Amino acid sequence: MCQLLGMNCNVPTDICFSFTGFACRGGRTDEHRDGWGIAFFEDKGCRVFRDYLASSESPIAELVSHYPIKSTNVIAHIRKATQGEINLVNTHPFQRELWGKYWVFAHNGNLERLPELPTHYYRSVGTTDSERAFCLLLEQLRHRYDEEPAANVLFETVKEIAGELAQHGTFNFMLSNGEWLFAHCSTHLHYIIRRAPFCKAHLLDEDVTVDFAQVTKAHDQVAVIATQPLTDNESWIGMESGELIGFHQGQVAWQATTVSSTK
Amino acid sequence: MCQLLGMNCNVPTDICFSFTGFACRGGRTDEHRDGWGIAFFEDKGCRVFRDYLASSESPIAELVSHYPIKSTNVIAHIRKATQGEINLVNTHPFQRELWGKYWVFAHNGNLERLPELPTHYYRSVGTTDSERAFCLLLEQLRHRYDEEPAANVLFETVKEIAGELAQHGTFNFMLSNGEWLFAHCSTHLHYIIRRAPFCKAHLLDEDVTVDFAQVTKAHDQVAVIATQPLTDNESWIGMESGELIGFHQGQVAWQATTVSSTK
Repeated sequence: MCQLLGMNCNVPTDICFSFTGFACRGGRTDEHRDGWGIAFFEDKGCRVFRDYLASSESPIAELVSHYPIKSTNVIAHIRKATQGEINLVNTHPFQRELWGKYWVFAHNGNLERLPELPTHYYRSVGTTDSERAFCLLLEQLRHRYDEEPAANVLFETVKEIAGELAQHGTFNFMLSNGEWLFAHCSTHLHYIIRRAPFCKAHLLDEDVTVDFAQVTKAHDQVAVIATQPLTDNESWIGMESGELIGFHQGQVAWQATTVSSTK
Repeated sequence: MCQLLGMNCNVPTDICFSFTGFACRGGRTDEHRDGWGIAFFEDKGCRVFRDYLASSESPIAELVSHYPIKSTNVIAHIRKATQGEINLVNTHPFQRELWGKYWVFAHNGNLERLPELPTHYYRSVGTTDSERAFCLLLEQLRHRYDEEPAANVLFETVKEIAGELAQHGTFNFMLSNGEWLFAHCSTHLHYIIRRAPFCKAHLLDEDVTVDFAQVTKAHDQVAVIATQPLTDNESWIGMESGELIGFHQGQVAWQATTVSSTK
């Protein structure tokens, strides 16, 4: 399996603190050492850093831990391979363009017997179930809508498609187009909303503390989503199996349960 | 305008030496300080580093200069903005998926009155003429072929499309799908093929020398392509206006002149 980390905020924020703890789990405090990646949205732009090395040993991860890139939507992933070789092409997050925006996706879980890709608009490059699920999702969205629908319509459509795909196995995923971040839980996903009054947070995986009161403004809102909580002195909310949450501007904007979870 | 750097080899090779000189031109030895980017193909995988900071001042460029990523196809770009704001979304190289492979493109020049994008398969995310030209090129390729044709057929088709696009202005570009690298010259593009017997090379932009005899094997072949020569003690070949070269395995595999140059 793998682990996921996401961030969605109302003002561009760096993820150095959370990523420092998360990157430890890629080979030091946990076993997810088969590559890692992180995508930062900056307005419509997106940059993805990835490496097939363990995040705890990668010079690129070291840079990302210390270089404060300000972003409103971030998705990161550390991999423990289930399907597909350990190489660059199979590292998450995956990225494609849809409706004139970049879309980024990372997955934790294992999907079996996925349907064949129609390969009209989107094709897999690597060999993971995850990239194929992403392409299937985008293909369906593109088939249904020629232009991007309203976010609540998108949320409903993603809920429906995610429910279908989740019938093929474990499907914890994060998806973002730079405006919102959708997080779907099959087994493990937790989140926390940080807002005023801000307090100190201490990492679980490394002895690092940050006082958010010192580095934020009063109206800042930051949602952090992770497979397992990253700090040991805050109350993380565990998501339910089948729960899909749409985060927008650092808040829970949409919340629903996919069909598959009602089985 | 901007500057381009490309590398195509028969064995995975790092580009640290060439990139060190090239990155100086992004704000130190030349004026191209409006962002930069570099794409490395590793088998079918591709990683793109990009920044809106000048390459001579970017911590990410510093990492890329010193971290030896081994790749058979590399495309890099330093930007001096003509069309489109200075931001992440407008930094080259651009990347899309076509026929189950990643395609990477960078452009130096200025294109006016480009046709509207059909927006069936590919849409621009940013506001540059360059990204639009890339999308127009991919759109035409995807319309003509459902599956990837042989490389010589692709070369002929790209020649034809590049000739049409070059009628809209200056169109120096590099394009790669990880197997070959196509370079098209409108105004300035030079290349060198390094093969045995290897000798020492000295950068133009910084006092750095490398002895390639120490870091290569006898059968290595490396083509380096750049807007302007990067070394002061080697014989770079200047490309002709309208010339398109397909590099494969560190050699010139295909060579032609686009229609536009015969005007």
